[in-house]
Amino acid sequence: MELLHTDTLEEAREKLWKETREMDMKTRKVKAQETPGRISASDVVSDENIPPFDRSVVDGYAVRARETYGAGEASPVFFRVTGQVRIEEAAGTLSGCQEAVRLQTGSMIPDGADAVVMSEYTEEYAPGRIACIRAVSEGENIIRAGEDVRRGECIIRRGQKIGVGEAGMLAGLGIREIQVYLRPSVAILSTGDELAGGDEPLTAGRIRDINTSALSAAALEYGMEICLSRRVRDEEREIRQAVEEAAEKSDIVLISGGSSKGDKDFTKRVLEEITGNVFTHGIAVRPGKPTILAYDRERRAVIAGLPGHPMAAVIMFRLLIRDWYRRKTGSPEPLKIPAVMKENVSSNQGRATCLPVRLVPGADGYEAVPVYAKSGSISALAKADAFIMIPRNREGLRKGEKVKAELL
Amino acid sequence: MELLHTDTLEEAREKLWKETREMDMKTRKVKAQETPGRISASDVVSDENIPPFDRSVVDGYAVRARETYGAGEASPVFFRVTGQVRIEEAAGTLSGCQEAVRLQTGSMIPDGADAVVMSEYTEEYAPGRIACIRAVSEGENIIRAGEDVRRGECIIRRGQKIGVGEAGMLAGLGIREIQVYLRPSVAILSTGDELAGGDEPLTAGRIRDINTSALSAAALEYGMEICLSRRVRDEEREIRQAVEEAAEKSDIVLISGGSSKGDKDFTKRVLEEITGNVFTHGIAVRPGKPTILAYDRERRAVIAGLPGHPMAAVIMFRLLIRDWYRRKTGSPEPLKIPAVMKENVSSNQGRATCLPVRLVPGADGYEAVPVYAKSGSISALAKADAFIMIPRNREGLRKGEKVKAELL
Repeated sequence: MELLHTDTLEEAREKLWKETREMDMKTRKVKAQETPGRISASDVVSDENIPPFDRSVVDGYAVRARETYGAGEASPVFFRVTGQVRIEEAAGTLSGCQEAVRLQTGSMIPDGADAVVMSEYTEEYAPGRIACIRAVSEGENIIRAGEDVRRGECIIRRGQKIGVGEAGMLAGLGIREIQVYLRPSVAILSTGDELAGGDEPLTAGRIRDINTSALSAAALEYGMEICLSRRVRDEEREIRQAVEEAAEKSDIVLISGGSSKGDKDFTKRVLEEITGNVFTHGIAVRPGKPTILAYDRERRAVIAGLPGHPMAAVIMFRLLIRDWYRRKTGSPEPLKIPAVMKENVSSNQGRATCLPVRLVPGADGYEAVPVYAKSGSISALAKADAFIMIPRNREGLRKGEKVKAELL
Repeated sequence: MELLHTDTLEEAREKLWKETREMDMKTRKVKAQETPGRISASDVVSDENIPPFDRSVVDGYAVRARETYGAGEASPVFFRVTGQVRIEEAAGTLSGCQEAVRLQTGSMIPDGADAVVMSEYTEEYAPGRIACIRAVSEGENIIRAGEDVRRGECIIRRGQKIGVGEAGMLAGLGIREIQVYLRPSVAILSTGDELAGGDEPLTAGRIRDINTSALSAAALEYGMEICLSRRVRDEEREIRQAVEEAAEKSDIVLISGGSSKGDKDFTKRVLEEITGNVFTHGIAVRPGKPTILAYDRERRAVIAGLPGHPMAAVIMFRLLIRDWYRRKTGSPEPLKIPAVMKENVSSNQGRATCLPVRLVPGADGYEAVPVYAKSGSISALAKADAFIMIPRNREGLRKGEKVKAELL
């Protein structure tokens, strides 16, 4: 039995990054209203201000702040109301002394005015005459043009996901389309003679194909698109044809099963033949050691031979391919949740361990409860909220130790 | 000016819950492969085992554990190999003494065998004869039928979101369709004479409509569907027609703007006329006080009059309507991230405050940095990762204080 030369996770990631350097992620211009959930493929710069002009943030009267100085309940200051600015109108000008203009929340501030007195601090003691019982300082109750978003400001960076705030800014600036990354297309091939589909009876020795569904669900969650998914028998010719077709049609090919060194594990040989470019076979991560990475230069497809066990297949997809895609699109690293280990956990020194955990609210933040699972378990993935990477130079984690959990 | 009688957030939520008791969320049967991201509308019970039979988790030999006792490098124990179980086949039976059957990872365990010796602890010293140099205990290297998922076990609860693990379990059990909640349909009406669409020039006094886009993005993020969105002028008749049409077509109507008590704030009157059932007007939450809640019994639609300010509108949508939808579908409360305040923050006593924050990794978990924003700001929503609720009986939060942030 040929021994696997294993890379560390970091080595495998770095090789994948370098080998695929020439592969550009596809982008497309889409309408602003179709961007939520997409990843921006370029920096977006504002060419307007938000707000576009100085606006009042209250209902009240636009005044010159210095003309209110000394105003109080016992010493009101008097103003002549020379007009009103309705919310959708252009404002005029304050020209004479002790003039005020009535405003609504959102109204434009007239030229010459530099503050707004709230209605509740004024009283109309005669038509067109108000008493102001509270002084305001310059700028009070005004939001300045560009105070929210400044013309020329970069409002969305490449790699930034369009969420509620980003969608709101695009609308607020009248930006009607932006360049986003296309969802990468993923082909999923699940190999194994023992695998039965959901519509087949389970005869003795056979189990149902979990990986096609679990990897599809993961790909969708990671913002990818499934262009093809099928089961393939453990026949070298069948696997070769399936991989060639998949690489032709997709950006990412996931092959589950057949990645180790058993009699029937043809994946590596097939990938060598097809791509001539298998750069990783074996990664020092538990679970997921028998993972193969290749890049098909001709068809521009990343190909990953993943373990047959569902938990390991999903974890390696996450740690390698999703991370690669994140980096390719310039997206930020995912949020890691601080937690404290609830129990001791041992791990193999020399191999990093990806430990699924449940996050349980404790006295002092989250406690991470390990979800133990024999390899091949799928229920553990549903029970876990997150995972923790135990570095390869550690023998385990101590109860009470601080860790950072990444949400699953 | 009529004063608002304000409910607390909890009171408003409870009223909304009670008033809409008769409103059932629509459900539909969908194929298992279309469930990822959906919310299950019923408990799903397994009627198979995963794995369906006892399986080997290694390559090796099925044996009776007690026949290996005492085996060691210096004292091998000998077995006769009576067969091989290929991975897709039914296994036979161990009948005689000191018999072993060769297995692959995943093979079915033969009747009579109760453990598997890994290949590396055996040596084939003659055809059909092996020496075993390591004892195994009962059950070793075997995953039992039902050990991952047991027949009769509830694998997915009502309200549970279908993620990778759930999708994998459905596939593993051959469950081909389940009942899920339909995405509720949302109609968005943005009111205000000052609002311009993205395709209109910005004349003086006018600003662009942010709320339609921000609320749409939020609704999509919350798993809802937009069935209608439009700007409406501040004309009572126009608003009435728009709300009636929206309530007819959707489960949830969001009206932004016109919810306070200004001259042009018709929303409450219109909702009274249409539904006869406005149960909340004014909620003691900052920002978002001028919020109106109504239920249209005839058209079975929840109607929310939201503040005109984008930040406040999105926050009240989140705190009230998303929370209501979560509760209606029996979904768990969202994860709250423990953090420590980076600065002092003051808030109004008597009103709960929803404070947007950025979460920044600190020495000891996350630090929450307040994102200050004048009302009406949209950039703040893009800058913030999460929000913190400051209870209404507090005057603020101290630097260093522990808080729980909810992801935006």
